Amino acid sequence: MRMSSLFLRTLREDPADAELPGHKLLVRAGYVRRVAPGIYSWLPLGMKVRAKVEGIIREEMEAIGSQEVLFPALLPREPYEATNRWTEYGPNLFRLKDRRDTDMLLGPTHEEMFCLAVKDMYNSYKDLPLALFQIQTKYRDEARPRAGILRAREFVMKDSYSFDVDQAGLQKAYDAHRDAYIKIFERLGFEYVIVHADSGAMGGSASEEFLAVSEHGEDTFVRDESGYAANVEAVEVPQAAPVEVTAGPAHVEDTPDTPTIETLVAALNKDHPRDDGREWTAADTLKNVLVMLVHPDGTREPLAIGVPGDREVDPKRLEVKVAPADVEPFEDKDFAAHPTLAKGYIGPGVLGTDKASGIRYLLDPSIAEGSAWVTGADSHGRHVIDLVYGRDFTADGTIQAAQIREGDIGPGGLPLRLARGVEMGHIFQLGTKYAEALGLKVLDEHGKLVTVTMGSYGVGVTRAVGMIAEDNLDELGLIWPREIAPADVHVVATGKDQAVFVRAEELVRGLEDEGLEVLYDDRQKVSPGVKFKDAELIGVPTIVVLGKGLADGTIEIKDRRSGDRRDVPVDDAVAEVLREVRGS
Amino acid sequence: MRMSSLFLRTLREDPADAELPGHKLLVRAGYVRRVAPGIYSWLPLGMKVRAKVEGIIREEMEAIGSQEVLFPALLPREPYEATNRWTEYGPNLFRLKDRRDTDMLLGPTHEEMFCLAVKDMYNSYKDLPLALFQIQTKYRDEARPRAGILRAREFVMKDSYSFDVDQAGLQKAYDAHRDAYIKIFERLGFEYVIVHADSGAMGGSASEEFLAVSEHGEDTFVRDESGYAANVEAVEVPQAAPVEVTAGPAHVEDTPDTPTIETLVAALNKDHPRDDGREWTAADTLKNVLVMLVHPDGTREPLAIGVPGDREVDPKRLEVKVAPADVEPFEDKDFAAHPTLAKGYIGPGVLGTDKASGIRYLLDPSIAEGSAWVTGADSHGRHVIDLVYGRDFTADGTIQAAQIREGDIGPGGLPLRLARGVEMGHIFQLGTKYAEALGLKVLDEHGKLVTVTMGSYGVGVTRAVGMIAEDNLDELGLIWPREIAPADVHVVATGKDQAVFVRAEELVRGLEDEGLEVLYDDRQKVSPGVKFKDAELIGVPTIVVLGKGLADGTIEIKDRRSGDRRDVPVDDAVAEVLREVRGS
Repeated sequence: MRMSSLFLRTLREDPADAELPGHKLLVRAGYVRRVAPGIYSWLPLGMKVRAKVEGIIREEMEAIGSQEVLFPALLPREPYEATNRWTEYGPNLFRLKDRRDTDMLLGPTHEEMFCLAVKDMYNSYKDLPLALFQIQTKYRDEARPRAGILRAREFVMKDSYSFDVDQAGLQKAYDAHRDAYIKIFERLGFEYVIVHADSGAMGGSASEEFLAVSEHGEDTFVRDESGYAANVEAVEVPQAAPVEVTAGPAHVEDTPDTPTIETLVAALNKDHPRDDGREWTAADTLKNVLVMLVHPDGTREPLAIGVPGDREVDPKRLEVKVAPADVEPFEDKDFAAHPTLAKGYIGPGVLGTDKASGIRYLLDPSIAEGSAWVTGADSHGRHVIDLVYGRDFTADGTIQAAQIREGDIGPGGLPLRLARGVEMGHIFQLGTKYAEALGLKVLDEHGKLVTVTMGSYGVGVTRAVGMIAEDNLDELGLIWPREIAPADVHVVATGKDQAVFVRAEELVRGLEDEGLEVLYDDRQKVSPGVKFKDAELIGVPTIVVLGKGLADGTIEIKDRRSGDRRDVPVDDAVAEVLREVRGS
Repeated sequence: MRMSSLFLRTLREDPADAELPGHKLLVRAGYVRRVAPGIYSWLPLGMKVRAKVEGIIREEMEAIGSQEVLFPALLPREPYEATNRWTEYGPNLFRLKDRRDTDMLLGPTHEEMFCLAVKDMYNSYKDLPLALFQIQTKYRDEARPRAGILRAREFVMKDSYSFDVDQAGLQKAYDAHRDAYIKIFERLGFEYVIVHADSGAMGGSASEEFLAVSEHGEDTFVRDESGYAANVEAVEVPQAAPVEVTAGPAHVEDTPDTPTIETLVAALNKDHPRDDGREWTAADTLKNVLVMLVHPDGTREPLAIGVPGDREVDPKRLEVKVAPADVEPFEDKDFAAHPTLAKGYIGPGVLGTDKASGIRYLLDPSIAEGSAWVTGADSHGRHVIDLVYGRDFTADGTIQAAQIREGDIGPGGLPLRLARGVEMGHIFQLGTKYAEALGLKVLDEHGKLVTVTMGSYGVGVTRAVGMIAEDNLDELGLIWPREIAPADVHVVATGKDQAVFVRAEELVRGLEDEGLEVLYDDRQKVSPGVKFKDAELIGVPTIVVLGKGLADGTIEIKDRRSGDRRDVPVDDAVAEVLREVRGS
C-alpha cells in the first residue's frame, strides 16, 4: 500500500459523531466511515484489519472441526414465527415486505435457519455431532446505536451452531467452543473476562459471555477474588441466613406525608427515634415495588418485590428473571384496580400476610428470616415498625432483582467488585428449545426419534475491531497488535532528496520479498511532520523512517507501542525490520 | 475435507424448485440450498467454490490498482433520492423503515455511496485517479427469481467505481477494467461475449456487457461475422437507403373489419389484388403502434411508432430508447382523449402528415424514403394503398425499437445472428451523472472546480458460480474447472479392508503436504457405487480411487471431464496426482 494512492484522508480533528477514543481514531485514521446511525463503511485500512480478525476466528473455528457455511441475511418470517422471535425481538428486528407483500426480516442471529438446514439434510445420530459456522452480516435496530462499530446496526458476527444427540455431546461442543474462544480472545489483544451469563431471549441453560473489560461497556459485571465472574443479570447473591429475632412486637405508627424512603427516614428519626439511640437509615426500611408483567400471551400480572429501602430494583436483572414476560410500570389505573394497595404505604400485610391484594410477592434474598423492618402499613400516612420477616409476615418466594453493589457478598461468599464490559462473545447451551420448536429430530441408535440438542456461539467481528482499537491506543493514535495490524511495517520516506525515495523503494521491495505487508509513505510533497503524525495515528506497530540519516548510511526503526527508536545501518534494514516484526 | 463429517447430503433426485441443469446439480451435490424464493444458503462445498471465484476477481482488481473497501447493504434513502433511483428502481428495490420510521433500503448497487465517500474525503485533482471495489451482498427484489443463484434476490457482486477528472482518465480506467474483466472471465471457465450495451437506468454513455453465452439466458444479443456483438437493446440497425418511387398515386380503399394485420392482408389479397400479381404480405403494411410514455415528473406523453406489419415493437428496446420515461399501454381512455385516432386504422395521416393528432410519430429505420405502404386511412374500415414515405407522408424521426430478427443487417452491414446470454459483468462510463447529482467536484490544476467523471463496473460473483456450473456439467454431475473446484482432488477409499483406508489416509496426507486441497471419502459403510456416484456428482476434476487394485500395488486416477482412467503404482500416487493437477 502506498500512501500516495491509498484511499485515505486522515483527520486532525475528532469527528463530531464519534464518542469513544478508539472510534474517534478509527475515523480520523481512515479505517471506517459513518454512513447512517450505526451503519459504517470500511475503508482500505479497515478492510485489512477486519480480514485479519476474521482470519483468526476462522482459523480457530476450523481447528475445532467447525465447517464454514453462509446463510442469507434476508430471511422469511415463518421460522422466526415458529420460535416466537418474530415478536420477541420487538423493535430491534428490521422487518420488511417484498414485492409480493411477504413478510421478511434481516437476520439478527440464525438459530432457526441452521436448525432447519440440519433438519432438512440429516436424520440420524450417525450424522452428528456437527458444528457449523458463518462469518456474516447481521442486523439489529439498536435503540441507541453509539460507540461506532462497537454497537452498530449492521455488523459482522461469526456465529456457530452445534448439533448433538445428547447433553454430553452438547457439553463437549460447548467446551470446545469455549476453548476456541479463549484462543481467539487471547490473540485479539484486549483484556477480557468470561462471565456467567443469563441467556435471556436465547433460551437454554448454561451460558457464558466473553466481555472486554472497558469503562465504555454497556454491561455491568461482577467478579470476586476467587476468579468468579458473572453478568449482573446472572449473579445470584446468597439468601441471608435467618437471624435471631430481637425486635419487640410490631407497632403501627402515624407517619404522615412519607410516601418516599427519604421522607420516611426523616420522619422516623424525628417522631419515632429508635430505643437504641441509633439513627434510622434507609437500610432499615422495606420498600415494596410494584410492576406489571406482560406475558407473551398478552395477559397482565402484577408483581410486588420487597427490597431494602436503600436499594433499587435493577431493571435488567428483573427483566431476565421474569422473561419471557415483559416488565411495564405499575400505573395509576393499576392502583385503582387494586384498592387494597395504599400507594406510597404498601406493606407486606396485603401482599404477603393476608394476601388481600391477590398479588404475588417476592423478596430480595438479603432479607433474612427474623429481621425487623419499617415498612408500609397499607394505609395512607402509616407505617409499621419492627415488622419481622417470618414472624409477622411472609412472602411467595424470593427474586434476584435488586441492584448489586460493590462489596456485596457473592455466591462464593466473597465480596463482589463491579466493572463494566462490552460483550464480545457469547456461548450458549441452547438445549432443545429451537429443535423442538422447529421439529429437528434424528433417529438414535435404537431407531427412536430424539430431539437434537443445540449450542449457539457468537463473536462480534466488527465489534472486535472496535474493541481492539479502544484497548490499543495513546494520545497520538492507534497501536495495533502485530497480528491485527493493517500492515507489518510502515515505511516513511522524508525530505526532498529523490535518493531517499529510491532507497525506500528498495527497502519496501526487500521487505515485501520477505513476505511482509508494507504501508509505504511515498508522498512527495508532504512534510516529515505530517508523515510522522499520520504514522502514529494509523498505528502500524513498526515504523521505519528514511531521511537525513541516509547520508550516514542509517535509517531509524521505531516501535509504535513503546516509542523506542534506534538507528540501524541501511544495509541491515531488512534483517532488522524482520527481527522487529517476527521477534527473532 | 472428509466426507464422513462434511455437512453434505447428496440427492439422487432433482429438487422440485430448480429449473436449470447446473442449478439442479448444485443443489443435489450440496453446494447451495434454497431458503426462500431467490434466497440461498451456501454449504461448505459451495463456500470453497465461491471463495475461489472471489479470489480470482480480487486478484485481478488489485492487479489494476483498485482498492478494496466495503460499504453497508442497509442504506439511507436520501442519496438514492438525490439521484432519483429511490423511485426509478420501482418494486425491484427492497425498502424498509427503521424503528424511528426512517426510510432505508437494501442496496442494489452503490454508485451514490461511493460518490459521497469520495466527495467527503477528496477535493483535488491530485487525489485522482482513484479506483475502488467491494465484494458485497446486494439485494434486488426480482419479479421472477428463477434459475437459482443465476438470478437471486440476495446475491454477491463485485462492484467497482472509478473517479477521474476528465474523459481521458475515465477512458483509461474503463479500458483497465475491461482488460481485467477479460482476464477474470477467461479464468472463470465459461463461454462469454462482450456486447455493446445500453446503459439503461445507470445513465452514462459507453457501456459494455460481458454475457455468458447460454440458452438459459434472459438477455438476447446479436453478433455478426466480423466479431461485432451487442445487446438487442443497444444494436442500431442502419437506416434503409432511399429507394426510387415506383408506386402510383395513393388511394384509399374500403377494408371493412380489418383491424389487425392478418385480417388486412387477407382482405387485400381478396378485394384489392396487386397489379403485379404478387400476393400482399404483412411486410407490405405499415403498422402504427401507440404507447403512453410516463416521464419522471409524472407527465404522460403519447408516442406513435411506425413499423412494418411483420414486426413487433420490442418492449426492451423501446424501454431504453425512451428512458428515463416509463412505457405504459395506450388504453381506451387514451383513444377517447384523441378522437382523431381511428383504432385499428391509424395511419400516418393524422400522425405524420397533417399532425391532426398532435402525437409524436417515429418510424422504424427499415422504412425507406420512397417505399410504398398499405396503412391505416384514419377512418374505421379503411386503408390507404401505395402511401409513399417522403412523398405522401412524413414523420418526426426514427426510433430503434422494432424486434431484431435473425439475418437482419447490422451496423456493420453484415447479417446478424441472434443468441441468448446471461449478464455476468457490466462496465459503464457513467460520466458526471452521479457526481453532478451529489455534488462531487474537485479542484483542477488551475484551481477551478470540476465535476468528477465516474465509471462503474460490476461482476456477479454468486451468479458466476451458477454460470460456471451451467457450463461445466454432464449427465453425471458437475465438472469444475481446476481453478474453481472445491478441492484439487477427490480421494475415494472403497471396500471394507481397513488397509485401504490406512493407505488412503497416507495418500491424503501426502497430497496435503504438497499443498493440495483434498476431499477424502473416508465413509466406512457406504458402497463403492454410491461413492463413485457422489464423486461424479460433486465434480472435483481429479478423482483417485483406492480399492482392490491396492493388492497389486495400484490405484486409479480418473479425470472427471474426459472420463479417462489410468492405474498408477501406489508409490507414485502423489507424484502422479500432482502431475494431473498441475499439468506438469
